Amino acid sequence: MTQSFAERRARLMGPNVPTFYETPVHLVRGEGAWLWDASGKRYLDCYNNVAHVGHCHPHVVQAIATQAATLNTHTRYYHDLVLDYIERLTATLNHGISQAIMVCTGSEANDLALRMAQAVTGKTGIIATDNTYHGNTAAVSQLSTRRPPIGGRAPNVRLVPAPDVLRPLGGSLAAQPQAFADNVAAAIAELEAAGFGFSGIMLCPVFANEGLLPPEKGFLDPTVAVVRRDGGLILCDEVQPGFGRVGSHFWGHDALGFAPDVVTIGKPMANGHPVAACLARPDVMAAFREAFGYFNTFGGNPVSAAACLATLDVIEGEGLQSRAAETSAYLMDRLRALRHPLIADVRTAGMFFGVEFVQGDLPATAFVAELVEDMVARGFILNRIGRGANTLKMRPPMVFGIAEADLLADALQAALSTR
Amino acid sequence: MTQSFAERRARLMGPNVPTFYETPVHLVRGEGAWLWDASGKRYLDCYNNVAHVGHCHPHVVQAIATQAATLNTHTRYYHDLVLDYIERLTATLNHGISQAIMVCTGSEANDLALRMAQAVTGKTGIIATDNTYHGNTAAVSQLSTRRPPIGGRAPNVRLVPAPDVLRPLGGSLAAQPQAFADNVAAAIAELEAAGFGFSGIMLCPVFANEGLLPPEKGFLDPTVAVVRRDGGLILCDEVQPGFGRVGSHFWGHDALGFAPDVVTIGKPMANGHPVAACLARPDVMAAFREAFGYFNTFGGNPVSAAACLATLDVIEGEGLQSRAAETSAYLMDRLRALRHPLIADVRTAGMFFGVEFVQGDLPATAFVAELVEDMVARGFILNRIGRGANTLKMRPPMVFGIAEADLLADALQAALSTR
Repeated sequence: MTQSFAERRARLMGPNVPTFYETPVHLVRGEGAWLWDASGKRYLDCYNNVAHVGHCHPHVVQAIATQAATLNTHTRYYHDLVLDYIERLTATLNHGISQAIMVCTGSEANDLALRMAQAVTGKTGIIATDNTYHGNTAAVSQLSTRRPPIGGRAPNVRLVPAPDVLRPLGGSLAAQPQAFADNVAAAIAELEAAGFGFSGIMLCPVFANEGLLPPEKGFLDPTVAVVRRDGGLILCDEVQPGFGRVGSHFWGHDALGFAPDVVTIGKPMANGHPVAACLARPDVMAAFREAFGYFNTFGGNPVSAAACLATLDVIEGEGLQSRAAETSAYLMDRLRALRHPLIADVRTAGMFFGVEFVQGDLPATAFVAELVEDMVARGFILNRIGRGANTLKMRPPMVFGIAEADLLADALQAALSTR
Repeated sequence: MTQSFAERRARLMGPNVPTFYETPVHLVRGEGAWLWDASGKRYLDCYNNVAHVGHCHPHVVQAIATQAATLNTHTRYYHDLVLDYIERLTATLNHGISQAIMVCTGSEANDLALRMAQAVTGKTGIIATDNTYHGNTAAVSQLSTRRPPIGGRAPNVRLVPAPDVLRPLGGSLAAQPQAFADNVAAAIAELEAAGFGFSGIMLCPVFANEGLLPPEKGFLDPTVAVVRRDGGLILCDEVQPGFGRVGSHFWGHDALGFAPDVVTIGKPMANGHPVAACLARPDVMAAFREAFGYFNTFGGNPVSAAACLATLDVIEGEGLQSRAAETSAYLMDRLRALRHPLIADVRTAGMFFGVEFVQGDLPATAFVAELVEDMVARGFILNRIGRGANTLKMRPPMVFGIAEADLLADALQAALSTR
């Protein structure tokens, strides 16, 4: 059946369409932190941040169903819910960020953020790290490090070395913040020399796709100083760390203690309903609205707004940010207690965990690939990240608790003990 | 209340965020072809194609509610519904188009279509008309004719004069098809000379945003011949004409009788749920998947697929395509019978109507703007299009029938009689 499913999928979606796992999982049902496949097998979801407040949370489902039965239009008509949501969401943000453009995907949000930096500065040069992913529009995918696009890489993009826990920039963890900033300064100089000028830097405050960097207060201060000195904007991609996931704070950038100019959000925002947003200070928004026309038909529609509001209700009502902090501390103790000779580092950013494996000086890429397949066979959905794809990535729904943490840690130790 | 709403909206969404109408409508409920505002006033929706099968259609609402309560993940896991949908949707398409990438907005679909043309041809030059709109990503918005973006217009874009009913290219309606094609050929030559080469042309088969061109079999044949001769792709934006709206056919391009290489769809696809798609032949899809990595987290998720399937159910089950043809014929008779000295043309593409007003040789822009406001005050939601914004645009939900057509035509005649 799985084989014929793969064939049917290739026939209808084309070749090379990514799946997770050598034997892809065929899911049919979800509830809380649990997923079920077509054969009835149950999986603990240790990976999906989209179902932020738990798969199929009834409060969010009800909000979607009720609003979909009442009205679903767009923001060229007045509607209360989108404004109620922006007001409530921006109340969680500091640094004067009080306005939003509602869109449908994190990619659309980051595509807008790039233009906001252009609008404020009048420049087009943009910086990101050399091992990141911020989305899939033609413009945003230029910040990724995949194969070069047709027509070549955009000349206004500079990629700086991503920070790393085991191989820190500048040779030590203490030297890394300044070393990262120095590389940014060099990239700015290149963009200025090439005539593009410098519009800003886009980054994830916990460097999630780069392999996960535990949030450390002040880590980005030297970088922010360089960006401010040279007149650029800080475009902060909070798609992964945001909405309480880092545990200590509601937003990743507040865990690091810096002030972004633009914040983008997506995946977890409405527990899976396709909605995202680009948030900014009024001065940035005004510059954007002056320089560019923009309207998004589906963005901020009443159903999306209702789903967003309901997701915030659950985050607050069920105390999911503090739960993330508690589960994180508990699971980190369990992960640090894992015994295997290839484990090189165990790290966390709240409800986001990385376990890095190395063989000598090399990333244990194949080892982690096999470990992931083994864990999936054991009923645990997780994956891997990092430059060498040698770091186990666990980023479960926020309803993940002590009981689930124990199940995951026990299974990991069992899988590691066989290797 | 409305004034304070406008202030609150500007405070939370920023300045210059577009609304419809001088006195924006504050909607709270929708059902079928009807909308209600916060004061209880009822409006006949003669405009919104997003609510394709009628506002809040219970079959679509139920499908969304049921699937949202069951599972909502992404296509890196296997799930049946997205394949069921692509199979059923592509069965409506001819010309070998049998595969899809599911995304969230028409803008994302067109952003992909541009890259498909690049992948097939290895070139980047692209053509659109000079009075169009295909979406809002940084790349796609380069095809629009708004203010130039920061950094200047993309040099690989050429805009050709849009066809027009009253001021046909080449001086006559008979000469227009070849004249349009000649301009495309000249633009291709420019792109080749500039070193970009020619990747394709993106167009709406009924030129909806350009002012609406009634579909005429063979109209684009000379253009298609030129594009084929020079190795480019036809990227057909079916966001507005698709899903039976043209009445005579399920797709706009089939009403004109040409074979596109890529078809993009969006707004009406799931009756307002944020979903869209880029459809292509297997050879085009394979070239794209070879040249570009692409994954869309929300695109084709189980809830979106369920909403899409349910929308197809209703289109077929309620015979909405044939209803569009019948209502179109009836309403066109009523519109042609409207009496006012400024009416210059009345035209249709199925459930899509344009009434153009001119004053001497000039577009009656202010007249139509006032007429729109008057109609909204009378309880009819509609708007205007075209280079001069002097064409009344009526593009109602597909459940619009004879009774609704009479209400609209009566109100239009009443409004015109006062002017």
